[in-house]
Amino acid sequence: MWQSDRMIFSVLVEVQLRPGVADPQGSTIERSLPALGFGGVVGVRVGKAMRFTLDSADAAAAQAEVAEMCDRFLTNPVIEDAVITVTEAAGV
Amino acid sequence: MWQSDRMIFSVLVEVQLRPGVADPQGSTIERSLPALGFGGVVGVRVGKAMRFTLDSADAAAAQAEVAEMCDRFLTNPVIEDAVITVTEAAGV
Repeated sequence: MWQSDRMIFSVLVEVQLRPGVADPQGSTIERSLPALGFGGVVGVRVGKAMRFTLDSADAAAAQAEVAEMCDRFLTNPVIEDAVITVTEAAGV
Repeated sequence: MWQSDRMIFSVLVEVQLRPGVADPQGSTIERSLPALGFGGVVGVRVGKAMRFTLDSADAAAAQAEVAEMCDRFLTNPVIEDAVITVTEAAGV
């Protein structure tokens, strides 16, 4: 019996500015919250959360493929770090 | 002996456009990836990942406070959903 070796993965890529890179959006939020009555918030950083599904052979291949996408296309490695989370969604 | 009842929490707020709301940024990524040699990617959604630390009494209070921040300030509840993750960082 033929069995597909492809699997579907749910991928989350969280992109954040590297530590030390100025984050004006985060700073603005941090400055504004006390005026709205929310105290005790520090260190606001605003990044991107990209979610998609990926058809790949296995989890390691999926992770490697997404890491290459991040390097080449999804992030700016000079100023951004990406954290990749790959979760098996289903077999095909 | 006096003990502070304040705790420090690490907060992650993931903001995504609600299902059905057009996501041009995600669509552009999805259209572009095959041209770069990355196939098998579908359903790209690009949201925001906000991280900060919050000084609050306990985890439930922290969660409630962040939920109110999201409703009032951090998200547009008409078109966006927020997923809040609160993790205890340290006692004060």
